[in-house]
Amino acid sequence: MTRPDPSAAALPLRTRIGQVNQRLKGWEAVRWVDGAPRVTDVLRREVDRWGGLGAVYGVLRADPWSAVHWGNGVPPERSAEAYAAVQDHVTAYGDGIPVLFVEEAPHGLMALGGTTLPVNLALGAGMDADLTEELAAAVAAEARARGTHVALVSGLDVLRDPRWGRAEECFSEDPALAAALVAATVRGMQGTTSASDSIDAAHVAVVAKHLAGQGAGIGGRNGSGAPVGRRELGEIHLRPAHAAARVGVAGFMAAYNDVDGVPCSANEELLTGTIRERWGWDGVVMADGTAIDRLRDSAPDPARSAALALRAGVDLSLWDEAFTHLGTAIERGLVDEAVLDRAVGRVLGLKRRLGLLGAVGGDAPEDPAPVPARDVVALAGRAARQAVVVVDDDGVLPLRPGQTLAVVGPNADDLDAQLGDYTPPRPTPDPAASTVLTALAARFGADRVRHATGSRLRGPLDGPTGGSGALDEVRAAAGGADVCVAVLGGTSRRTYEDEFADNGAVAGPAPDTTNGEGVDLSSVALPEAQLDVVRAARSAGVPVVAVVLDGRPRALTALRELVDALVVVPFPGPSGGEAVAAALCDGTASGRLPATFPAADGVLPVAHDERMETARGYVDVDVLRRLPLGTALLPDVALRLRGAEPATVPAAGLADGAALRLVVDVTNAGTVPRSLSVPLYGRRHEPGIRPRRRQLLAVRRATVPAGGTAAVPFDLGLDELGSWASGEPVAAPVTLSVWCTPEPDPPSDARTVRVTDQNGATPWER
Amino acid sequence: MTRPDPSAAALPLRTRIGQVNQRLKGWEAVRWVDGAPRVTDVLRREVDRWGGLGAVYGVLRADPWSAVHWGNGVPPERSAEAYAAVQDHVTAYGDGIPVLFVEEAPHGLMALGGTTLPVNLALGAGMDADLTEELAAAVAAEARARGTHVALVSGLDVLRDPRWGRAEECFSEDPALAAALVAATVRGMQGTTSASDSIDAAHVAVVAKHLAGQGAGIGGRNGSGAPVGRRELGEIHLRPAHAAARVGVAGFMAAYNDVDGVPCSANEELLTGTIRERWGWDGVVMADGTAIDRLRDSAPDPARSAALALRAGVDLSLWDEAFTHLGTAIERGLVDEAVLDRAVGRVLGLKRRLGLLGAVGGDAPEDPAPVPARDVVALAGRAARQAVVVVDDDGVLPLRPGQTLAVVGPNADDLDAQLGDYTPPRPTPDPAASTVLTALAARFGADRVRHATGSRLRGPLDGPTGGSGALDEVRAAAGGADVCVAVLGGTSRRTYEDEFADNGAVAGPAPDTTNGEGVDLSSVALPEAQLDVVRAARSAGVPVVAVVLDGRPRALTALRELVDALVVVPFPGPSGGEAVAAALCDGTASGRLPATFPAADGVLPVAHDERMETARGYVDVDVLRRLPLGTALLPDVALRLRGAEPATVPAAGLADGAALRLVVDVTNAGTVPRSLSVPLYGRRHEPGIRPRRRQLLAVRRATVPAGGTAAVPFDLGLDELGSWASGEPVAAPVTLSVWCTPEPDPPSDARTVRVTDQNGATPWER
Repeated sequence: MTRPDPSAAALPLRTRIGQVNQRLKGWEAVRWVDGAPRVTDVLRREVDRWGGLGAVYGVLRADPWSAVHWGNGVPPERSAEAYAAVQDHVTAYGDGIPVLFVEEAPHGLMALGGTTLPVNLALGAGMDADLTEELAAAVAAEARARGTHVALVSGLDVLRDPRWGRAEECFSEDPALAAALVAATVRGMQGTTSASDSIDAAHVAVVAKHLAGQGAGIGGRNGSGAPVGRRELGEIHLRPAHAAARVGVAGFMAAYNDVDGVPCSANEELLTGTIRERWGWDGVVMADGTAIDRLRDSAPDPARSAALALRAGVDLSLWDEAFTHLGTAIERGLVDEAVLDRAVGRVLGLKRRLGLLGAVGGDAPEDPAPVPARDVVALAGRAARQAVVVVDDDGVLPLRPGQTLAVVGPNADDLDAQLGDYTPPRPTPDPAASTVLTALAARFGADRVRHATGSRLRGPLDGPTGGSGALDEVRAAAGGADVCVAVLGGTSRRTYEDEFADNGAVAGPAPDTTNGEGVDLSSVALPEAQLDVVRAARSAGVPVVAVVLDGRPRALTALRELVDALVVVPFPGPSGGEAVAAALCDGTASGRLPATFPAADGVLPVAHDERMETARGYVDVDVLRRLPLGTALLPDVALRLRGAEPATVPAAGLADGAALRLVVDVTNAGTVPRSLSVPLYGRRHEPGIRPRRRQLLAVRRATVPAGGTAAVPFDLGLDELGSWASGEPVAAPVTLSVWCTPEPDPPSDARTVRVTDQNGATPWER
Repeated sequence: MTRPDPSAAALPLRTRIGQVNQRLKGWEAVRWVDGAPRVTDVLRREVDRWGGLGAVYGVLRADPWSAVHWGNGVPPERSAEAYAAVQDHVTAYGDGIPVLFVEEAPHGLMALGGTTLPVNLALGAGMDADLTEELAAAVAAEARARGTHVALVSGLDVLRDPRWGRAEECFSEDPALAAALVAATVRGMQGTTSASDSIDAAHVAVVAKHLAGQGAGIGGRNGSGAPVGRRELGEIHLRPAHAAARVGVAGFMAAYNDVDGVPCSANEELLTGTIRERWGWDGVVMADGTAIDRLRDSAPDPARSAALALRAGVDLSLWDEAFTHLGTAIERGLVDEAVLDRAVGRVLGLKRRLGLLGAVGGDAPEDPAPVPARDVVALAGRAARQAVVVVDDDGVLPLRPGQTLAVVGPNADDLDAQLGDYTPPRPTPDPAASTVLTALAARFGADRVRHATGSRLRGPLDGPTGGSGALDEVRAAAGGADVCVAVLGGTSRRTYEDEFADNGAVAGPAPDTTNGEGVDLSSVALPEAQLDVVRAARSAGVPVVAVVLDGRPRALTALRELVDALVVVPFPGPSGGEAVAAALCDGTASGRLPATFPAADGVLPVAHDERMETARGYVDVDVLRRLPLGTALLPDVALRLRGAEPATVPAAGLADGAALRLVVDVTNAGTVPRSLSVPLYGRRHEPGIRPRRRQLLAVRRATVPAGGTAAVPFDLGLDELGSWASGEPVAAPVTLSVWCTPEPDPPSDARTVRVTDQNGATPWER
C-alpha cells in the first residue's frame, strides 16, 4: 500500500497550519455512543477548517479532568475502532495525510485499561535502566497495539525542589540517573538507538517532557521562572534531554517556565540553538498545553505569540488558540513562511518515521493484537519491589511469620495513594491491585492483621468521634499487636469533582490531595496529623514501622525520632501493597533514595550535588543533607571500589569513545541472593571551578549470590568523565575522586582518576 | 610636601607582592600599651618580609572577634596616634610608600567610639537617598578624622532570601532601591561623583561589598553557590555595583560565593570582563577575608589559587596566605608579572587618589579634628525614625498621653538587639542610646510603664520559675494596662565568649543569636516562644501592639492574627528605642517594608519582582506575597500618578540622557505635616521576555503639609526605562505600565509609558 508523502511546500497554507496545530482534546473528537465510535462536530469543524490535522491529543485519555471514565469512555479492546473513526474522517475530509494520535504515558498509558506503572521517582529509586527499558517497551507495545502513535512521557525534569507537585514525574535530583533512565525509556518505547532508526509497529514515538529547567522553578512552584545560568542548565537540566536526543527521541515538549527570563516556548537559543544546531537533533518540538497562549505576557497579541513560538522552534501546539493565528502572523510579516514549512516538515517527518506516510515502514496494525497487559503487570511489580527503600531498621524488620500486626495510617488501605498523577481510573474488579493492608493480610492471615486509619493526610479524620476517636482506634489496633506498620505519606488522587486548570492541572479545592500537577506544597514536612497516628501507635508500646508512600521527598526528621523502622516508597503503582509487604517480610529491599530528603522545611532547595560552600549551614538545623540521594539500609552487603593507584585515561581517548574501566566488588554476607544498585560517585577537581560536592557518575544493578561476591564493572567514558557545562559532554584534562560508599565527600580511600592531556598531565597536578 | 610616587614596575618584586597583600589583622599590628601605641612583632615581620605594605586592615577594629574592647583598644581620640605608629614604621622600614588604613564601616565605623547607624535594611525602609548620603558623609568625616583611608561598606548584596544571616546588610530585595542607596553611600563617603574625582581629606575611599550575587546563594546559606543566569545577574545583582562604579567607587570586594560555578575571586568574566572592560571602571578589587585561601577547592595549590585570583582581577587580598605565593606563581609561569603590575598599579592608584602619593591632593590631616559624633547621632536618629514601618493598626495607634503601658518581650529593653552585626562595643555611659522600654518610660513616666521580658528570642526564659513564670509576669504586666507593646524580633548580638570562623563570622554556639554573618536560619517564622509572650499579653485582655526589631524579613502571619497593631523596624541602631516610641505616639511613621515579608516558612525565596508565572502558588499557603516590598500603613496620605494618556519618550533620546517626567500628587488629609517615600512601580512589556510582575522604577522622599498636596516629579531616564539584562542600562523600544499605588499588578489606571523607536513605535504595539 502506498500512502501520500507530500513535501511541506506542496500543501496549501491552511493545511500546513493545520499540520502544526493540535487543538483538540481527543475525547471530545470522538464519543462512544451505543457501543460504537462517533466523530463529533468538534472534529468535523476542525478538519474542515484546516483541510486535515497534524495531530489529535488524547482520544483515549481517561481521568477526572477529561471526565472520561468506565461509564463513558472507549472500551480498551475497541480503542483501534475509535482511532479509526477519527483517522477515516481526517483522511477522507482532509488532504489524505494521516493524523498522529498522541496520548499521555508518563507511567503507563493514561487510558481505560492502561497498565499503570510505578511513577518515575519510583523507577529512580530502583536505578535499573534495563528494567526501565523493558517496562517502556511493554507500555509502547500496549499503546501501539491500540493504535497510539505518540506517547507524551515525563523524564526530562530534574527534581531540584520537593515542594514541586510534579516531583513524582522526575526520576531523580541527579542528572546522570535521570539521563540514564530517560534514555532507557526512549529506547524501550521507540525501539530506537538513534535518530535515523524508524519506529516500527510494536513501538511508539516519544515526546519527552519538559524542556527545560522546570525542576529549577523558584520555590518549587509549578511553572515559575528558572533563573539559572548556562552551566547549571548544562550540567543539571539539559543532560536528560541530551541523552534522549542521542537515542533518537522523536520529540521534546517545551516547558511552561522561563529560563533566565525567556519562556521555553519562545526560547530560540534552547529550541534551535542548543538542541538542533549544537546537538544536531531534528525532531518535533511540541508546546506544553496552552503554553503558546500563555505567552500573552511576552507578546502583545496572539499572532505575535504564535510567531515567537514558531521562530523559536516550536513545531506543534497543544490546545492553543494562538498558534491558529500563524496565517495572520505570516501575512503581517512577523514570521517567514519558510519557518512554518520547517515545522510542517518536522511533523511530516515524524509521520514518515512512524510509517504513516510513503510506501515504506510500518503502520499501526490493521488488526491490533490483544492488549498484552499481563507482562506489563509483572514487570511493574518488579519495579515496585525495587522502589522500596529501607532507611532505618532497629531490628524490627523483617517481620516474622506468625506475628500479629496493626496496619494503620491514612495510606494503609488507599489504592489511589499508590498510583500518582496522570492515572486512568482503575478497573472493577481490580485483581492486580493490592494495598499494604490487603497484602499483609494475605500473607499473615486476616485474623492476624488489625487496621485503623487514624487520620486524613493533612488533618484529623471527620466523623462523630472526631480525630481523637480515630486515634483511639489506632491505639486499640496497636495494643496487643507485635508490630505496628503505619502507612503514611501523600496522594496525587484526583476526583471527578475536582476543579481543573485549562491544562488539566488540579486547580480547585482538593482538601486531602498533596501531590501532582498544580499541588505544590510550601511545607514538605510530614503533617502533624500523621505524626499523631504514629504517636498513638507508639503509646501502645509496640515497635512501629513507618512506611511513607509519597511522590516527593519529605522532611522526615520528626518521624524518624518516633519510629523504629522507616521505609520510603515513591508511589509504587497498583501492586505497591504487595511490593511493600514483600520488602517488610523478606529483608531484601534494594531501593535507594532517588533524591535528597531534606532535614527540615526551610532548607530547600538542597541536593547531594550542590557545589562546595564555606557556610556552616543553618544554625537551627543539625545536618543539611542527612538523607542524601543513594541512602539505603542494605544489611549484609558491602561495596568496595577495586584498586588504589590513580587510574589514567587520556582526554583525547575519551573524545574518541574510549572508556576507563573501574570495578566495584560487591559482597553479600547474607543467606539469600541479593539484587541491588551499585552507585559510583565522583568529585571533579577543575581549576577555577567550584566543584560539586558529589555527583553520581554512574549506577548499575547487580545480583550477588548468598555468601558470594560480584564484580561490577563500570566503563567510564565521555559522559561520565567529560564536562557538561555546555549541555553536551566535552573531554578535557581533569582529576576526579571516585568512590562507591555513601559518604557525602570523598573518603580517604577514594580512587583518583586522571583524565590527561597529550603530556599525560592533568591541570590539577601541574 | 612631596611624597614618593613610584610606578609599579620600578619596585622590587617582593615589594610589589607586598603591595597586593593585606594579611594583617590591624589590631594585632599595634597595641595600646601604657597609654601609647606600640607596633608589634607581627607588623615588623610583615614589613621586613615585603619591604613595605599595601594595606593594613582593622587597626581600629573593636568587637568580640578581634577581642578588642574598651579595656584594651585604641581610645577613639587617639586613633591617629595608633595609625601614625604603624605608618611611621611602614614608611621607615619599607620603601617609603604609605600603607592604606582599611576599616569596616557597614553602618558606622566599627571602632571604639564609632557612631553606630541603623543597618542598611533600615535605610532601605526609609528609602531616602539624600539622608543616606548625609549619613555616609558624616561617617566618612568621622573615620578620616581618625586617619582611616578606606572603608569597607556593605551595599551591593540584594536581599533575595531572608534566611541569610546577612540580610540586614542589604538595603533591599529591589535592585533599583539598593542601587540608589549604595550610590548615595559612595557619594557621601568619598565626596565623589565619578572615578576621576580625587578623595579629599574629609572623606574616605569605599570598597563596596560584595561582588556579586551573594544574595542569590542557595537557600540563603552564607557563601553558597549562586547558580543564576546572566539576565538575573544583570537585572538584579549587578545593578548596585554598576551604580557604585558610576559614582567612582574606589573598590569592590569580591564575594565568597560562586556565580554559576565560578568563584567570584576567580571570576575573570566578572572582575575583568564586566566591571572593567564593559563598564570602564578601573578601581581596586579586594578579595573577601580568606577568600583566596578558600579557592582550595578550585585550585590544586596556593600558588595556583593566587594566580587564579590575580588573573581574574583581584588586586588586593585580605588575610590570605595564598596570595603570598605570587612570587612562586610567577616563577612557575602560572601568571605573568605584568598582571601583578596591573594590580600593584591599581593599589598605588588608590593611594594617589587619596593624596598619599605624589605632590598633589590631600592626606590624612596631621592634626585631626575632634570626632564630630554629635551630628552623626542626630542624622542616625532621623534615619531610625524613617525605618519604622507600621503594617497593621486597628485603631490602637497612636498611643495617647496618660495611657498606662505594658512593655514586654525579649527585645523591649535590649540595646544589643537594635544594633546589628559589625558593631563596636558601646561606650559606658551611653547617653545616646534608648530602648523601646526606656524611651516609652521617658515619655509616659516610669510609673505608667510596666515591664516583663517573657521569653528569650528562641525559647523560654531560664530561671527558677521557668518559662511559664516569665509568661505570668507578662500577663501581670499587661493586666490593668491600657495597651501592651510587645517588642520582639531577633538579634545580631556577639559576645566575647562566642566562637568565630577565620573570617569573623560567628561560628560557635550562640544560643540566642539569630542574625548576622554566620547565622543563617532555616525558619524565619517568629519563634513560638515569642508568640507565647504575645498570647500571654493577649490573655490579659488588652490591645497588643507588636514591634518586631529584626535584621531580616520574618514570616509574620501567625503574629498578625494575634495582635491589633504590627510595627516592623529593621535594626534601627542605638537610638532606635526613641524612634519607635516616637512613631508609636505621633502616628507619622513613614517607613516601608524594604523587602517582601514571606507569608510562611517554606515559600522562600519570594520577591515582589519575580517574573510572572502560571502557577497558583502553594496549596497550603494563602497568599504568597501578602506583605510585599513597599508595604506601609500611611493613614491620611494618598498617592496618584498624574496623567492618563500614554507618555512617550524615544529610545534614542534615553540613550542621549533624556528623561521622561512623570508626576505623583501626594495629598495629606491629616492635621500634621507628613514626610514619606513615594514609590513608582513599573512592569516592562517586552516581546519574548517573561516580565517581572512589578519592579521599583524609582523612589523619592516627599514632605506634604497638613491638609495639603505635594507634586513629586520623577525624571525617568535610561536607568529606569532601559533594560538591565546585560548588567548595564541599554535603551530599546519597549512599553511599560507605571503606577504608584501598592497593587502587585498594574491597576487599571496604570500609566502607559512608551519608549519608541525611530518610527515612534514600540514592539509591544506593532
